[in-house]
Amino acid sequence: MTTIGIGIVGGGYMGKAHSVAMQAVGAVFNTLLRPKMEMICARSPISAEQYRSAFGFARATDNWSILVNDPKVEAVVIASPQSTHREIACAALTLGKPVFCEKPLGSSLEDSQAMVSIAEQTGITNMVGFNYIRTPASQFARQLIADGTIGRVTYFRGEHTEDFYADPNSPASWRANGDANGTMGDLAPHMINGALALIGPIDSLIAEVETVHKTRPGKTGAEPVTNDDQAQMMCRFENGAMGHLFFSRVATGRKMGYAYEISGTKGAIRFDQEDQNALWLYTMDGPPAQQGFKKILTGPAHPDYEPFCQGPGHGTGYQDQIIIEARDFLSAIETGKPVWPTFRDGMEVNRIIAAAQRSSNEKLWVSVDTK
Amino acid sequence: MTTIGIGIVGGGYMGKAHSVAMQAVGAVFNTLLRPKMEMICARSPISAEQYRSAFGFARATDNWSILVNDPKVEAVVIASPQSTHREIACAALTLGKPVFCEKPLGSSLEDSQAMVSIAEQTGITNMVGFNYIRTPASQFARQLIADGTIGRVTYFRGEHTEDFYADPNSPASWRANGDANGTMGDLAPHMINGALALIGPIDSLIAEVETVHKTRPGKTGAEPVTNDDQAQMMCRFENGAMGHLFFSRVATGRKMGYAYEISGTKGAIRFDQEDQNALWLYTMDGPPAQQGFKKILTGPAHPDYEPFCQGPGHGTGYQDQIIIEARDFLSAIETGKPVWPTFRDGMEVNRIIAAAQRSSNEKLWVSVDTK
Amino acid sequence: MTTIGIGIVGGGYMGKAHSVAMQAVGAVFNTLLRPKMEMICARSPISAEQYRSAFGFARATDNWSILVNDPKVEAVVIASPQSTHREIACAALTLGKPVFCEKPLGSSLEDSQAMVSIAEQTGITNMVGFNYIRTPASQFARQLIADGTIGRVTYFRGEHTEDFYADPNSPASWRANGDANGTMGDLAPHMINGALALIGPIDSLIAEVETVHKTRPGKTGAEPVTNDDQAQMMCRFENGAMGHLFFSRVATGRKMGYAYEISGTKGAIRFDQEDQNALWLYTMDGPPAQQGFKKILTGPAHPDYEPFCQGPGHGTGYQDQIIIEARDFLSAIETGKPVWPTFRDGMEVNRIIAAAQRSSNEKLWVSVDTK
Amino acid sequence: MTTIGIGIVGGGYMGKAHSVAMQAVGAVFNTLLRPKMEMICARSPISAEQYRSAFGFARATDNWSILVNDPKVEAVVIASPQSTHREIACAALTLGKPVFCEKPLGSSLEDSQAMVSIAEQTGITNMVGFNYIRTPASQFARQLIADGTIGRVTYFRGEHTEDFYADPNSPASWRANGDANGTMGDLAPHMINGALALIGPIDSLIAEVETVHKTRPGKTGAEPVTNDDQAQMMCRFENGAMGHLFFSRVATGRKMGYAYEISGTKGAIRFDQEDQNALWLYTMDGPPAQQGFKKILTGPAHPDYEPFCQGPGHGTGYQDQIIIEARDFLSAIETGKPVWPTFRDGMEVNRIIAAAQRSSNEKLWVSVDTK
Repeated sequence: MTTIGIGIVGGGYMGKAHSVAMQAVGAVFNTLLRPKMEMICARSPISAEQYRSAFGFARATDNWSILVNDPKVEAVVIASPQSTHREIACAALTLGKPVFCEKPLGSSLEDSQAMVSIAEQTGITNMVGFNYIRTPASQFARQLIADGTIGRVTYFRGEHTEDFYADPNSPASWRANGDANGTMGDLAPHMINGALALIGPIDSLIAEVETVHKTRPGKTGAEPVTNDDQAQMMCRFENGAMGHLFFSRVATGRKMGYAYEISGTKGAIRFDQEDQNALWLYTMDGPPAQQGFKKILTGPAHPDYEPFCQGPGHGTGYQDQIIIEARDFLSAIETGKPVWPTFRDGMEVNRIIAAAQRSSNEKLWVSVDTK
Repeated sequence: MTTIGIGIVGGGYMGKAHSVAMQAVGAVFNTLLRPKMEMICARSPISAEQYRSAFGFARATDNWSILVNDPKVEAVVIASPQSTHREIACAALTLGKPVFCEKPLGSSLEDSQAMVSIAEQTGITNMVGFNYIRTPASQFARQLIADGTIGRVTYFRGEHTEDFYADPNSPASWRANGDANGTMGDLAPHMINGALALIGPIDSLIAEVETVHKTRPGKTGAEPVTNDDQAQMMCRFENGAMGHLFFSRVATGRKMGYAYEISGTKGAIRFDQEDQNALWLYTMDGPPAQQGFKKILTGPAHPDYEPFCQGPGHGTGYQDQIIIEARDFLSAIETGKPVWPTFRDGMEVNRIIAAAQRSSNEKLWVSVDTK
Repeated sequence: MTTIGIGIVGGGYMGKAHSVAMQAVGAVFNTLLRPKMEMICARSPISAEQYRSAFGFARATDNWSILVNDPKVEAVVIASPQSTHREIACAALTLGKPVFCEKPLGSSLEDSQAMVSIAEQTGITNMVGFNYIRTPASQFARQLIADGTIGRVTYFRGEHTEDFYADPNSPASWRANGDANGTMGDLAPHMINGALALIGPIDSLIAEVETVHKTRPGKTGAEPVTNDDQAQMMCRFENGAMGHLFFSRVATGRKMGYAYEISGTKGAIRFDQEDQNALWLYTMDGPPAQQGFKKILTGPAHPDYEPFCQGPGHGTGYQDQIIIEARDFLSAIETGKPVWPTFRDGMEVNRIIAAAQRSSNEKLWVSVDTK
Repeated sequence: MTTIGIGIVGGGYMGKAHSVAMQAVGAVFNTLLRPKMEMICARSPISAEQYRSAFGFARATDNWSILVNDPKVEAVVIASPQSTHREIACAALTLGKPVFCEKPLGSSLEDSQAMVSIAEQTGITNMVGFNYIRTPASQFARQLIADGTIGRVTYFRGEHTEDFYADPNSPASWRANGDANGTMGDLAPHMINGALALIGPIDSLIAEVETVHKTRPGKTGAEPVTNDDQAQMMCRFENGAMGHLFFSRVATGRKMGYAYEISGTKGAIRFDQEDQNALWLYTMDGPPAQQGFKKILTGPAHPDYEPFCQGPGHGTGYQDQIIIEARDFLSAIETGKPVWPTFRDGMEVNRIIAAAQRSSNEKLWVSVDTK
């Protein structure tokens, strides 16, 4: 058992999630490589010091370059804003340091392409964090599709819907501006990744991206909202399946609507992250009178489940997903074997987002003749 | 209490449903006008006589014209194939006889327009049968939207999905040919009507209609399938709401997937006909810690419920929907007041279907650059 | 196809339900024997005439004896208060007329025993109406247990819970007095019948019957409540299974809580009448990763379903249960074959109720030492 | 921020759970007191060393007395078999060291009374681990009852059911012998604690404890099972509520059936640990047409939720419950304020178990007269 020095850039929501995960992963999974909490980077010296103390790092900085170049930092986790991903990741990879980067990979397709380019040139371990696909239930769904249990997929419907901005009276804030903070920047990447991971590459699409609430109350009256609230696309997968994806931050009542339904020629699958320990499976086997959707509770028989201190039905929380990511990242570094998803997988998500934006800008709809 | 002579054209699935409903409606709702089962029409003299005896009609015929022209037949229910609707309805209306016509109204937009034209010229009671929208739960949903409980609607997702043709090994049959028997002809009308009834007119759309299984096993090998298995459309409602509709007869595991989700600025609604006695309602009222989707079981407090011999939670079956239609049809005849939905409402459904076919024939998709 | 003259005693809730069912049964099931609505009996001449007109009977009376003795009344449906069941049923059976009696059979075990005695002496068709057990889902549950799908039953939990009297401020009324109107008289019979039908005879039990709200608001202040609000029993079935039954009219939030859970050595079953078209089945078959409760939607593959104008997933309403009872009653009269459940089955329910009352009167509880 | 040396006795399932929790709690909750992983004790030197290395402890031992007496061990977590709890806890408390003891507190009521006695004499922080009651959902249920949201409780039904021993062909093992390994020793304590925590003290009860499968396959044929498979009790709470509790390890299909239903005079609550992020709440407020059970997804508005790196709907896993326990234990040590649940709360659970065993040994059932 050896140790590896970890540096985390960003101390906010995801920075904390990854810090907790790195602290726990050794005891949970008994990994060979044990993380050593070397340095955390945040916006100001004060906040950096607070995170250091709270999360148990040895040192703190407000300069990501110091972190990346520190000799004791042997691997870098990027949990800072999208716009910073490219620069930090490229610097770390160039120094030969493995990088785990939060989703979405880049703030543009071009950024992502640059990151993939360096990652593949250097051959250094690179991974992108789409945590929701890591639940035992969703990993089991991938397995069921891969082994043919539901036959050939004919339809996929996915959504990532939340309601944190559903109330039109919710005030304008940083959320109301910047592509990265809109629904396509913030929520869509998770389910686009899910669609690609479950069904495969997307060939073509037609999309609509919309700002539902054009203004929101600001300090001195109504302020314009300059990014998107919801978006949908119809798509066609390379394997011929028809698809529909929907993303929204104004989906009233939805708290964690990362959900999908998959129809195949021999069965069907349903999943909703709001009940993340259940996968619903229908198969055409057996007598017709006994056919129905089966609610399977994830347990030791399912992928990525057993190492937790958990019997069947005990439940997987958000943090558990991040710990699984930490395990896979450490394991890839140690063994040199490929990890999933790589920067290339992250880049594919940016490609779909770019195509959807392009499609939405064209106006291709058929008007319904109302004569 | 007076009686009205009823003639029903068609003795199959829906003919039986309407016969049972007409027999029961008087006792259930204590209607003033009581139906008298005068005549049934079916394809052959033998089947007509069988239906007559089983359903309790006075006379039988294999000629719809005899039925329509019979002086004791005072109102006509059309439950025969789509291609016959126009001719029968126009004949009956011209004779001044009220007409209840099964969905979809016509087999083409042109047919429907002709039927509406005569119906509106003559001013005779005309009604079209979209039974699923008649459940107390869906009527309550309409009420909640109309009274503003969920605010302005921002997104609507509807589907009508079943799986009776999901297995690619299901043999070719009458189902495999003829537009009327495809998904757009058979299932889509229900949910398009639902969307219009719940949200309002549709302005524009973009659609895709697909035959998933191009051939099916026939008696002498694979036979071509010439109608559609599934279809989807993105649409924009007149009131600005974004929408998505999906229809499928190959949706594995779905038995009666007439289902919708509606997001509004103050709340949300969910419904699934597979649990047709429940309406799920979310509102932003009250303390955040107590917000959630409420599963409301329909009962006497809901529209169209009380007249049944039923306390709360007792359940509404398929036949109950048809009985409600019978009540409304009889009541409109008796009072001369307008009924819902009229032929005009039925024609709007045909208009959307026509636009969707048109859109699907154009190829407007954006290819995802896979370089 | 011949007809049979039907007389119904009682025009209230259940009298209406049976009237509607008798009118519909011929068309729904194409029965050989067709009911003819001969006479209805109600408390006063005025109400009797109103029911006659609304439900479509030929004649009306306020004297059950006239109805029972009328030569055109060939079979009698008893839907009047419990206290009248014995006298009416015995008179009809003695005249050789088949009797369908609403649950519970008698207002006491003694009453029921007398009714069974005459029924079995005369050999005339006799049936008791426990409608909830007649849903396709519950009939399918019986079948699954009988054919060994879930193995030997080890535990049964049943309840019949509603909340119409949950609010302590609900006023005193006829519901507040009389054993027949309490929970043990009104709700318990359904689930006791269910337990016996699903699992078999009960050997021993220990029970508690309780009036939760000792007074309710009356016209001139608080009035005493003299019957029971809720009751529970632990029981032991003859086949060794452990059981628990719960009945309540103060079960807040419950609208039609006729529900059960059954554990067996090879599987398990769950049912809730609030979603009466679904039966949940778990079996130990297949790979552990694919085990889970299956939500089976009742359809043509299930018992008592097909004759309805219904495809799979279309739903069974309350009235449908009553129509199935009408079919079985008519069919037994016509064929002379035994019907289920007979008066003897109804008497077994009274036996359990009597034992539960006896047990509740003894005080056998173990005090928890609170030192 | 200071540190506290932690010693954990037991390296199995729960020992691992507490080790992971202690490692994570500082980063998750930013506790003032930070645990230092000093020593772990297991059955043999070899296994102790393995756990030490995997979980990150400084030292290992196979003698709990060495651990308890080690000066660097400042607080003790007991995760060893029930039979050892009394001796270890008393030794640690006598040395003035805070103790967190896994449930059930003692292997007998006498053991528990001795532990409470020393805990209360010394005044040292003492806590018992009933983790399931620590979910945000169950803590919220306690809050809703306490603040009167559902009025006076009239009925409580609780169960802890699993199916790990449902198959009668599951082989005899350590599970088949020893009271501690039976359902009353292993599963019942969780839900008895839940009932006491939610509703309050239990006054009296009547119970039945049963070995369903009397033998199980052993290495040389059928071997006797000497402990219990399932048990139920009817009980009466001090506040007048009627109750029923059920425990089973042979409840086919149940993976984590820690579940309860609570009826009150103003509302009702339902919970099932198999969907542990949802609390179902019914209240009598508002228009009747809008009443129904609300599915509330736990989030930042709920107790014990916010400190996780989690937005609403993100989910709470098993390990999260243990981390909350760790936080409360550390916080009580630091502040000297009382913690919940204490040894006294644990002792109450043993008292109910003892009374249930006593009741089951008496035979108080009423035989159903089958004449």
